[in-house]
Amino acid sequence: MKIIVINRALKEEHKDKIRKAADKIGADVFFAEEEKNIPLEFADAEVLYGHGMENARTNKNLKWLCVPSAGVDHLMKPGCFANEDCILTNSSGAYGVTIAEHMIAVSLMMMRRLTETYEETLRGEWGSPRPQKSLKDARITVLGTGDIGKEFAKRAKAFEPRSITGVSRSGISDETSFDRMLKISDLDKILPETDLLAMSLPDTPETRNVLSAERLALLPEGSYVVNVGRGSAVDETALAVFLETGHLAGAALDVFHTEPLPEDSPLWKTKNLLITPHIAGNLTLDHTLDKNVDMFLEDLENYAEGLPLKHLVDRNKGY
Amino acid sequence: MKIIVINRALKEEHKDKIRKAADKIGADVFFAEEEKNIPLEFADAEVLYGHGMENARTNKNLKWLCVPSAGVDHLMKPGCFANEDCILTNSSGAYGVTIAEHMIAVSLMMMRRLTETYEETLRGEWGSPRPQKSLKDARITVLGTGDIGKEFAKRAKAFEPRSITGVSRSGISDETSFDRMLKISDLDKILPETDLLAMSLPDTPETRNVLSAERLALLPEGSYVVNVGRGSAVDETALAVFLETGHLAGAALDVFHTEPLPEDSPLWKTKNLLITPHIAGNLTLDHTLDKNVDMFLEDLENYAEGLPLKHLVDRNKGY
Repeated sequence: MKIIVINRALKEEHKDKIRKAADKIGADVFFAEEEKNIPLEFADAEVLYGHGMENARTNKNLKWLCVPSAGVDHLMKPGCFANEDCILTNSSGAYGVTIAEHMIAVSLMMMRRLTETYEETLRGEWGSPRPQKSLKDARITVLGTGDIGKEFAKRAKAFEPRSITGVSRSGISDETSFDRMLKISDLDKILPETDLLAMSLPDTPETRNVLSAERLALLPEGSYVVNVGRGSAVDETALAVFLETGHLAGAALDVFHTEPLPEDSPLWKTKNLLITPHIAGNLTLDHTLDKNVDMFLEDLENYAEGLPLKHLVDRNKGY
Repeated sequence: MKIIVINRALKEEHKDKIRKAADKIGADVFFAEEEKNIPLEFADAEVLYGHGMENARTNKNLKWLCVPSAGVDHLMKPGCFANEDCILTNSSGAYGVTIAEHMIAVSLMMMRRLTETYEETLRGEWGSPRPQKSLKDARITVLGTGDIGKEFAKRAKAFEPRSITGVSRSGISDETSFDRMLKISDLDKILPETDLLAMSLPDTPETRNVLSAERLALLPEGSYVVNVGRGSAVDETALAVFLETGHLAGAALDVFHTEPLPEDSPLWKTKNLLITPHIAGNLTLDHTLDKNVDMFLEDLENYAEGLPLKHLVDRNKGY
């Protein structure tokens, strides 16, 4: 069996771990910095761990593609796989911790007005205290209760919010940090009682534009929005209007309709909008990379033994 | 009995609450925006809730001064009280929540490089991910385990650090978020195993310069310091050197030897130093103000009934 691994962030310790696991099942492994570095003798590999879109599109022998990201929307179009039966797994469980931390960080930066304070101190000014909000006693709504939403809820809980409501398709979660769970069909009921809306949704036909102008209007005056899932979930133009009018006290976006955000995007100058360049979840945190590799190796063992893979993506649902 | 209240942040609801409590014990209450607004007929009040240093210095009838701050170091010098037997209480329990939130916020801003990212986005630049650190798996040392240190530990715990070590004079705490407690005499042993040093100490002769140049050198390469107690606890000049050389990856100071920080202080330009203008704990957060008033009223009831006051300051220890 041939395995291609494409990941420039890997350290020697990760490569060693992967090599040992490959040896154990009699597989050959090739590490590539980028997809274009795959040698001819590995172009027909059975397994690919990494962003190998071009190989997936052309390699009829590819039986399993494991992407190191959580999002797989780029692999949902027809023609992405030369082998239509190719199994797809993602690394969705690896990012919950780091993205949840980011969500807490940007929520506090906005609510406690630390962005404005930081700008003042950059200019060497000793400013005055500003009216501030807090996670304490806030009504938090978590839209999307997968790995990221759960890890966020666990952390948010420690700040003693008034409530944490999870909203998902099923309306069910095993995470006890949610004070209650609602179905997505009840979203319009909970929005008017939301001080902080924390969104971590995959990109699917159902999640596109879920935070529409109509729904933004349902959020109370002075509320906050955080989005770390996919940019397509938010009507960016409407969001900017609600920020400029002051209806929303702040929004933090890590994801956008177009990335990188175009230079001439009006979002750069939108009032009380905290922009981050899709960095909430990346492999620069040791923990995330370790977990990413461990999840692949766990499923490599399953794959070799003919067991079902744990991190399987439902190619119909898109996550 | 006459009561003076000096606090410009109070809302009508707080004043009502205080009036009702005063009525109940047959006391007259006067609300002043500032100390200079106290009318002559209240100058000999028995109770003062607020920063009434001038009244305390001259009013021989003053039996109880309740300050709305946690710090009381400004009242420790001889001559502060016309009545040497005047009881002093503080509002130390009111600030734990808000200051702990601030500590988490600035820790994440530094470790996740969000200050640099924010500067980039202010310029309209879509930056690249930076190597980042995290509270996840960090070894956290909490120096000062009063109300603030405890609330910080509770919140930090949710981020799954490797360990949280509390350090205090007694080496004992009832807060279960501390994985272990050490006495201050063991501080030098724990510093080399500290990724994040979170300091919330009152100003006392023992805490002055506790984070000296020698102790800064004991912290490992790439570690972080947060100080929200009193500025006197840190050797600012040495801290700046350790930041400039890169030995420390970052520091967040909310308190300084001189406040406001002088315009010509080199700290304004020190590398990786996150300055906030003593805003971690202030009364602009509803929860903090509510709790502050409730704590005073709790002790007003005790005072009227001749019971011991709950938030008493030991004027020998200074906290």
